[in-house]
Amino acid sequence: MSRMVWAQEDVERLLGDIADVVYLDSKNRSEFLSAFQPGGKFFDVVGIYRDNGSADIIGVFDKEIINGLSSSVKWIAHNGAGYDPIDVHACVARGIYLSNTPGAVDDATATTALYLLISTMRQYSIAERSLRALQWKPSGLNTKTHDITGRTVAILGLGGIGLRFAELVQAFPMRVIYHSRRKVEDAPAYCEYFENVEEMLTQADVLSLHVPLRAETVGLVGEKWIRALKPGAIIINTARGKVIDEDAMIRALEDGHLSSVGLDVFPNEPEVNPRLLEFPNITLLPHMGTENQDSQRKMEVRALQNLRDYFTTGMGKDLVIEWKNAKKPNL
Amino acid sequence: MSRMVWAQEDVERLLGDIADVVYLDSKNRSEFLSAFQPGGKFFDVVGIYRDNGSADIIGVFDKEIINGLSSSVKWIAHNGAGYDPIDVHACVARGIYLSNTPGAVDDATATTALYLLISTMRQYSIAERSLRALQWKPSGLNTKTHDITGRTVAILGLGGIGLRFAELVQAFPMRVIYHSRRKVEDAPAYCEYFENVEEMLTQADVLSLHVPLRAETVGLVGEKWIRALKPGAIIINTARGKVIDEDAMIRALEDGHLSSVGLDVFPNEPEVNPRLLEFPNITLLPHMGTENQDSQRKMEVRALQNLRDYFTTGMGKDLVIEWKNAKKPNL
Repeated sequence: MSRMVWAQEDVERLLGDIADVVYLDSKNRSEFLSAFQPGGKFFDVVGIYRDNGSADIIGVFDKEIINGLSSSVKWIAHNGAGYDPIDVHACVARGIYLSNTPGAVDDATATTALYLLISTMRQYSIAERSLRALQWKPSGLNTKTHDITGRTVAILGLGGIGLRFAELVQAFPMRVIYHSRRKVEDAPAYCEYFENVEEMLTQADVLSLHVPLRAETVGLVGEKWIRALKPGAIIINTARGKVIDEDAMIRALEDGHLSSVGLDVFPNEPEVNPRLLEFPNITLLPHMGTENQDSQRKMEVRALQNLRDYFTTGMGKDLVIEWKNAKKPNL
Repeated sequence: MSRMVWAQEDVERLLGDIADVVYLDSKNRSEFLSAFQPGGKFFDVVGIYRDNGSADIIGVFDKEIINGLSSSVKWIAHNGAGYDPIDVHACVARGIYLSNTPGAVDDATATTALYLLISTMRQYSIAERSLRALQWKPSGLNTKTHDITGRTVAILGLGGIGLRFAELVQAFPMRVIYHSRRKVEDAPAYCEYFENVEEMLTQADVLSLHVPLRAETVGLVGEKWIRALKPGAIIINTARGKVIDEDAMIRALEDGHLSSVGLDVFPNEPEVNPRLLEFPNITLLPHMGTENQDSQRKMEVRALQNLRDYFTTGMGKDLVIEWKNAKKPNL
């Protein structure tokens, strides 16, 4: 159990009757790993609840941590949709199940994407800074900006967040086109599938990214795809910073091929490339995707529920895709 | 015809075949008024196209200007939904028709309200400033902020913009409650009418203002209504600054009764009360409601179309409400 839980009563309600709960009190990584040795405080732990805040103390769940857990550990319930801070392959190799909290993040993250969409298309970030500098309206903005209604948004990755974003922008409506590894059979009729990414990009006013970070998605949106977009297009990223080739993106901002970008995520958070701050016409948020009390509690409850389900039924709901695709390990 | 037209080809297309078009070239108010005297350049003008940009040169269309127009003037086609910069009573007294551009502004203004809604509920304005100061995420924001989905928004004034805003937030959905001078009979079923404003306010997480500025709406949202809102409520204003009692609003921000406000309009634009800048938790835009090329052209075309309709049929579509309510004048 992470040191930082959102609502103590949820832990009691969901786990109190079926498990002994031990909280993280290690001061650093080595102390954490030692506690999984025989005689250590965590030696008999079966399920781990993990949130990203724990990384500040013990670091991410890389191969060293996963391999350092005692053999009693059977389930890691991660709080978050993206589980790139956990070495899933090491988990699979050791037969440790890994769950995330997919549905719980959809609404808050898609709302963040909607904010970035409006801010970039209407250039409200620069407008706000101008007002707060008591300079009222920056001149000429109205010749650069557009209504959202009727424009085309391309969604890369029509999972839960992408679908929720499609629902929200359908209110205008925008034309929604998308690419996923495969056509989403139960997608709403207004979501038009493109098997060919570049063909999709040529039609997009805005590209919004909703793919997970995996080895094969690092730098996925690079020079070629960026240049396939219409001149003046906008990229919105609420997924992971490393999904974009940042240098290629900055070049396209410099030469105006991209009119703006709206970023909630960065390759090396909390570091932000200072070159980005040179562009007044872009909107930057410090990874606020799910930062609100409603969604954060929803995510925590979902992660705890996955632990409860594992303890009571032997399986939780949100096993990650690598696990679903893996052969059943020797347990 | 205003000096500043958005698209010359629209003027030619809509008026070129039926009218001599004379452009505003006066350098100041007195030169403008002189041109309406016998022998002046504007003496025979029948229809006037007005936009707010003209106020920088000749001032607003107050009683002095309206009464200074030659008797040939029969129609003023104002570009904008709010026509408070024009003395409508002086127009009615002189038998000069006044039109605005209601529908054309709905989408862009409601989108601005949606931006302010997300920004204030999620506290993205402070988050953006924190990132641009290279300080990443302000701490503790996630204990103050909320998901939009499922919250209640009260709309004051369910005209075109209010209705469009209701449509946009229905995508989450939010619960939509409203008050207008009378129940809107063709409103969507999800808009719940409250005859009693204060009863409505006690149920609102967010109050969004969509009433025109008239003598009777100055200071309409004052101490009593603000205090009727739930503690922690938010006010969004994309209508007119003077509709809110600014002092009462600032007091409620100071003592925390209002958790935030999102303002696109101010009582004395382009002046902004510097006390507002002391609140990091509010979002301020410099009257960007319709500031984009799509909507601005749509508004201009609609205003020009009103002139064309008057010239060709004797009546334009968007006669303002005071005119609809007025007795037919002696023309």
